Amino acid sequence: MRIASYITSDGTASYGVAENGRLKDVGAAFRGTYPDLRAVLAAGSLDELAATAGQGGELAEDDVMLISPLPNPDKIICIGLNYMTHIQETGRDKPAKPSIFTRYPSSVTGHGQPMIRPKASDWFDFEGELAVIIGTPGRDIAEADAMKHVAGYSCFNDGSIRDYQRHTSQFWAGKNFVDSGAMGPWLVTADELTAPAAQTMETRLNGEVMQSTPISDLAFNIPELIAYLSIVTELLPGDVIATGTPSGVGLFREPKLFMKDGDRIEVEISGIGTLSNLIRDQA
Amino acid sequence: MRIASYITSDGTASYGVAENGRLKDVGAAFRGTYPDLRAVLAAGSLDELAATAGQGGELAEDDVMLISPLPNPDKIICIGLNYMTHIQETGRDKPAKPSIFTRYPSSVTGHGQPMIRPKASDWFDFEGELAVIIGTPGRDIAEADAMKHVAGYSCFNDGSIRDYQRHTSQFWAGKNFVDSGAMGPWLVTADELTAPAAQTMETRLNGEVMQSTPISDLAFNIPELIAYLSIVTELLPGDVIATGTPSGVGLFREPKLFMKDGDRIEVEISGIGTLSNLIRDQA
Repeated sequence: MRIASYITSDGTASYGVAENGRLKDVGAAFRGTYPDLRAVLAAGSLDELAATAGQGGELAEDDVMLISPLPNPDKIICIGLNYMTHIQETGRDKPAKPSIFTRYPSSVTGHGQPMIRPKASDWFDFEGELAVIIGTPGRDIAEADAMKHVAGYSCFNDGSIRDYQRHTSQFWAGKNFVDSGAMGPWLVTADELTAPAAQTMETRLNGEVMQSTPISDLAFNIPELIAYLSIVTELLPGDVIATGTPSGVGLFREPKLFMKDGDRIEVEISGIGTLSNLIRDQA
Repeated sequence: MRIASYITSDGTASYGVAENGRLKDVGAAFRGTYPDLRAVLAAGSLDELAATAGQGGELAEDDVMLISPLPNPDKIICIGLNYMTHIQETGRDKPAKPSIFTRYPSSVTGHGQPMIRPKASDWFDFEGELAVIIGTPGRDIAEADAMKHVAGYSCFNDGSIRDYQRHTSQFWAGKNFVDSGAMGPWLVTADELTAPAAQTMETRLNGEVMQSTPISDLAFNIPELIAYLSIVTELLPGDVIATGTPSGVGLFREPKLFMKDGDRIEVEISGIGTLSNLIRDQA
């Protein structure tokens, strides 16, 4: 099942099941109880959502504005340096522990919305990533139990303002510009994508392949990440883990390659779909 | 005016004006419109809050459980390495830009509540800090206008799990353990604390002074921080900026000094008050 979140033509925030360019709306029936997808996950009500989809109205995908499937998560936890190919291009060795930073939800837009290059910089880079969305809360989760806590997956673009990222040792400033990243087009449930590590990911800039990797090349795999993160914090339904990017980012190309107004950036993951965004300059 | 947030004896989350150990409750009258202090700030309704305080019931501070004055901010933005004395003890030079990281609200408890030493580590350190709370939203805020965006101030303990903080270059893992930090006891409004830089801060462990500094020693002052942060993200009402800690942390003492179950840690700032927390081991 693929669940999208969106704004309808009359400005209502809703969500529903995506199939073949159509959206079987669930929000109209569900919103009184579950205002958004995060609330559905928190209630453990994906089955109820599936049963309700199709009873209500259907919308064309083109008639709504998709937003991040999880527009208001408690946490967006990002993993840096998690593919050996990317670790090597940054000149580092394989780390003993995952590098972690946070993005605010305001820095992540949805599929089809513009990703914004800020006035402050023209070093705007892409990072294609697999996002893991938590369904069942937990702390101190054992690796063997970790996959039971996953609700589903999405494509993620960890868009980065590279000069700000390098202002200090902490990545914060490069990773939190408003609408500089994206997630979507939808959440694919874990019962549909049963083998995330068997998938492949490709990032394309104006149609040209920039990054291409099997997900199996993750330095820290999904259970390892969930186990480590949950030592520190309680993972909650709707929390997003952006699992890191492979080699091929613009910063380490010769010459450097950054995104500019009018560019089209896409992150495609087999079994999920394609997250596509136009680049626009900050107004 | 000093505004505290708390849980009453019947489990209701509320807020009110703190005076001489009493709380003039406002939440009972206001909650329908403004569920919490963040909503009051977002509505720009501090004057209305002041007028309402005292019309309703009064509570003894000892009869409620204080929580962080902003228990659910959109962002808690923390500044690392922002007093020259602390920069020097870490062996670094004065940075060109502020180092920034984020804490999740779940990592910050209130005055009088236990700060939790996790099972995973016994390297639990204190960091006394001045917290600045945003009242008026803004992006690309000029330094000259920055102080108009401040609603008030509080004491902050940026409690840190030092071995986890050093797992990688990113501070995240050391700064986000559940209830490892604290804020309070209340928000002091900016009209009452008109000269934050003229204040002094002291951190005491079991009564012994560990950190002592004039706030004026900040490497990046409050207007500089607000201007820089707002290039990246929109600052929102209720957002917390923890402005950094001076020298004297346990990590750089000889021998190292970490907090353990039963310790009492206090952060006192003149013009605000004292944030006091007992250390307890994770259950």
